[in-house]
Amino acid sequence: MRVAVDAMGGDYGPAVTIEGALGAVRDFGLEVVLVGEENLINRELRRLGGRGPAVTVADAPEAIGMGEGVFAFRRKRKSSIRIGMLLVKEGEADAFVSAGNTAAVVAVSQKILGPLGGVERPALALLVPTLAGSTLLIDIGANANCRPRHLEQFAVMGRIVMESVLGRRHPRVGLMSIGEERGKGNDLVRTAHEILARSPLNFIGNVEGKDLFSGKADVVVCDGFTGNVVLKAAEGIVENLLAMARRDIGRDFGARVGFFLMKRQLKRLYRKLDYAQYGGAPLLGLDGVCVVGHGRSSALAVKNAVRMAREYVRSRVTDKIRSEIGGLVRPVEHAGGAT
Amino acid sequence: MRVAVDAMGGDYGPAVTIEGALGAVRDFGLEVVLVGEENLINRELRRLGGRGPAVTVADAPEAIGMGEGVFAFRRKRKSSIRIGMLLVKEGEADAFVSAGNTAAVVAVSQKILGPLGGVERPALALLVPTLAGSTLLIDIGANANCRPRHLEQFAVMGRIVMESVLGRRHPRVGLMSIGEERGKGNDLVRTAHEILARSPLNFIGNVEGKDLFSGKADVVVCDGFTGNVVLKAAEGIVENLLAMARRDIGRDFGARVGFFLMKRQLKRLYRKLDYAQYGGAPLLGLDGVCVVGHGRSSALAVKNAVRMAREYVRSRVTDKIRSEIGGLVRPVEHAGGAT
Repeated sequence: MRVAVDAMGGDYGPAVTIEGALGAVRDFGLEVVLVGEENLINRELRRLGGRGPAVTVADAPEAIGMGEGVFAFRRKRKSSIRIGMLLVKEGEADAFVSAGNTAAVVAVSQKILGPLGGVERPALALLVPTLAGSTLLIDIGANANCRPRHLEQFAVMGRIVMESVLGRRHPRVGLMSIGEERGKGNDLVRTAHEILARSPLNFIGNVEGKDLFSGKADVVVCDGFTGNVVLKAAEGIVENLLAMARRDIGRDFGARVGFFLMKRQLKRLYRKLDYAQYGGAPLLGLDGVCVVGHGRSSALAVKNAVRMAREYVRSRVTDKIRSEIGGLVRPVEHAGGAT
Repeated sequence: MRVAVDAMGGDYGPAVTIEGALGAVRDFGLEVVLVGEENLINRELRRLGGRGPAVTVADAPEAIGMGEGVFAFRRKRKSSIRIGMLLVKEGEADAFVSAGNTAAVVAVSQKILGPLGGVERPALALLVPTLAGSTLLIDIGANANCRPRHLEQFAVMGRIVMESVLGRRHPRVGLMSIGEERGKGNDLVRTAHEILARSPLNFIGNVEGKDLFSGKADVVVCDGFTGNVVLKAAEGIVENLLAMARRDIGRDFGARVGFFLMKRQLKRLYRKLDYAQYGGAPLLGLDGVCVVGHGRSSALAVKNAVRMAREYVRSRVTDKIRSEIGGLVRPVEHAGGAT
């Protein structure tokens, strides 16, 4: 298996992403194609002790910044994101991993790889850690505006991932809302609830924000605006909590000693909650495997993202989504209206 | 000043709400009207050592359960929520505090007190603790479906609260979105951004989920669906984090000792983050002061909610909202369309 890795993506630069990619080669026995500015990559490879036969380089001299808009990166024909996607499209790589500008990865993926037949909106998913294990949140930001049919497709794609990649049987699908009762929520959610309730999914009804971390559902479905806001709020509260704890604890000698004794456990807990370490978020519903890493990805996170890409290729998620979504009977939501 | 308190509201029952109301009488020198089943309230008052002259009772024999739908509570003419609102409407009380069914409080308030002239959608606000102090999040669940004009009004009401009640000068108003750049967000947010950017508010642009806890803005505006999901997710992550920490720490002797030494500081931190303790969420834009308590309100939380109601009455928030929203020039969003 060969995975293309965006060497230019991520806040910490090529040195970190390349180190992560080489770690994946070493630990998982796969090949990687490092995509980016060739001279820069070769310099880093020399610094890290040279490349083996499992590492190749694909030149992509144009960089895409984290803050650039859709129009700016659409013009760049030689960006690492576009070249990486093309490698997958042309069968030169089995998957693409990028910790670059998420909006750019989403936009370019739609253009180069394109959605699978029947999929209206590819979506970003993320495994969120819970007390019970993990819950897949979908969509976390690929689609700011959604229609009820999109949420149904997110639910189906989420179920396939939890079944095929994580081996969970009959995954419970919950719909993010503001009350558990049917009828609670905004117009989008109320209509999506009716569609999901009629589907063959193991639909457990509405869930609330708190249930994202309780393990009540295996898959939590929401529009990309809500998913993105919730996820960033969760990251924010963890960071803020730690900062508040450090401040409060610093004021008390006993507490400082206590903190020292607990340090190892606290670090482990923090790692569990640090989304940047997970590896990445799969972009589901595309004709090809693509994993988006957190901007703040460490080398370990890049390595984990490559492993995740391998698991998605191995478990044939793309084929499964193609056949299931293609086979969905399409009910008419509005007489004569496009859904 | 006289505050009507819903004695029947809250998960812990009348004993707790009455204890909280009596605490407010004792500590803040105000009068309370306990609204609910008269015999039950009198029994509790006797148990708590009798009532002073500052405590009266208004009989409201019909209970509204936490799970009941809008239709169920609309039929109840003698619910404590409806009777409490009527006391405010008729000038018998200056404010109403309820920790009962939030959906019921919102619906009944609209019917009995009604929105202030010009206010299209009364909204629920909540002060969220941050490292820097606190941020007002509005709306947290009164309006699941919003239009851009509603978000503008939420922004104005939020600014008035931060200025008048919390004494913050030129409050910074942020719009909750999925990226800081103008143009990021769903259709609702993109249009609201344009309106806010043209307003005289101190608008700092889009903020992200993480900024809710960073203190970047004094007021964060969003639709009630997003606000409710984010807030419940924040509650969920704090609870889950503590449970994970307890589990991890229990496995290690040194960490257990450390936890013991840190206990006092951790408890203080938890209280700071426990929304149930704050007192409540003001329902803004009504022709009258109404504070909604968390379902899990303790006696202290009820007492704090009564204090909050007093502050809103004293700072004349209602009059200020009436004059500002009434004075807003109403731009036409869509040619010929209702906004």
